[in-house]
Amino acid sequence: MKILFATSNPHKLKEANDVGSGYGIEFVQAKEPYPEIRDEDVGKVAEAGAKYVFERVRQPVVVDDTGLFIDALNGFPGPYSAYVFRKIDSAGVLKLMDGVENRRALFVSAVGFCNGKTVKVFRGECIGTIAKELRGEQIFGYDPIFVPEGCAKTFAEDAVTKERISHRKKSFDAFCRWFLSL
Amino acid sequence: MKILFATSNPHKLKEANDVGSGYGIEFVQAKEPYPEIRDEDVGKVAEAGAKYVFERVRQPVVVDDTGLFIDALNGFPGPYSAYVFRKIDSAGVLKLMDGVENRRALFVSAVGFCNGKTVKVFRGECIGTIAKELRGEQIFGYDPIFVPEGCAKTFAEDAVTKERISHRKKSFDAFCRWFLSL
Repeated sequence: MKILFATSNPHKLKEANDVGSGYGIEFVQAKEPYPEIRDEDVGKVAEAGAKYVFERVRQPVVVDDTGLFIDALNGFPGPYSAYVFRKIDSAGVLKLMDGVENRRALFVSAVGFCNGKTVKVFRGECIGTIAKELRGEQIFGYDPIFVPEGCAKTFAEDAVTKERISHRKKSFDAFCRWFLSL
Repeated sequence: MKILFATSNPHKLKEANDVGSGYGIEFVQAKEPYPEIRDEDVGKVAEAGAKYVFERVRQPVVVDDTGLFIDALNGFPGPYSAYVFRKIDSAGVLKLMDGVENRRALFVSAVGFCNGKTVKVFRGECIGTIAKELRGEQIFGYDPIFVPEGCAKTFAEDAVTKERISHRKKSFDAFCRWFLSL
């Protein structure tokens, strides 16, 4: 079964398909851009994005909005994680966290789905901490500074663990389970 | 002459009226919220906001969108200046600038106007540098860390200079001149 995934990010597409393949679902990239509303809830951003893209492509579609919420920074960079990454990178976030003891952070992924009749949001969360330095290869976003709870390595150092327990794994799992039950 | 100014920020309202009074224009606060589009151009955010509020209040209205664009941070916090301020404050921006030599920054204000027929944007800019520490009272946004070009004091330390040369002074001047010429 195929379904459109509106994203310009090849890493997100790959992660979605790593999940989808277990359900016989293939996510097909739609490079349809959509305006991201300014809301501190990634779920609302994903929902609005899915509705917007559906109106244009008239086919069932998912979008993913993701945020890294760092406790000591009052939830920064949150829903603006991609913007902040483009501007100051993981290194900037590390600098903000320099000398900060409470390093707790939450990665949240929200998958928004719209087929014209049904609009639904599926969330996945991953609790962790912000590392004290960049660890692992810089391939995707904040992976080199995020250490999931109970682990010693960052997402960038341990792709196998990321694939098993990440926020996006959980949100796409939830979506796939629901989609197959339709 | 009165005109609505959609803002929840009393400081912006005061600054607008400091300018407007010289033109016989009074800005009256409208607490109508509007979604801020995600665009790196504050002009587009202000334009979309003015159109949105006009559709609701059906009266001529202005909105202001402002950003602080720091060269060494690739333009961060830019159009998300208010969000970033709520999360990490001027102190967070100072931390990001710790040890950074190039401290050049640009404050940009865009006033968006809509009366149902005409939609227009008026920009004002102020070049300056990011101070090395907080200076002056924390009353409004990044004022304690912004030193306008040619000055020794931050906006927070020298309200008289701010009133004379600020980005918002310039954008509202441009708007008022145009509005009176209608």
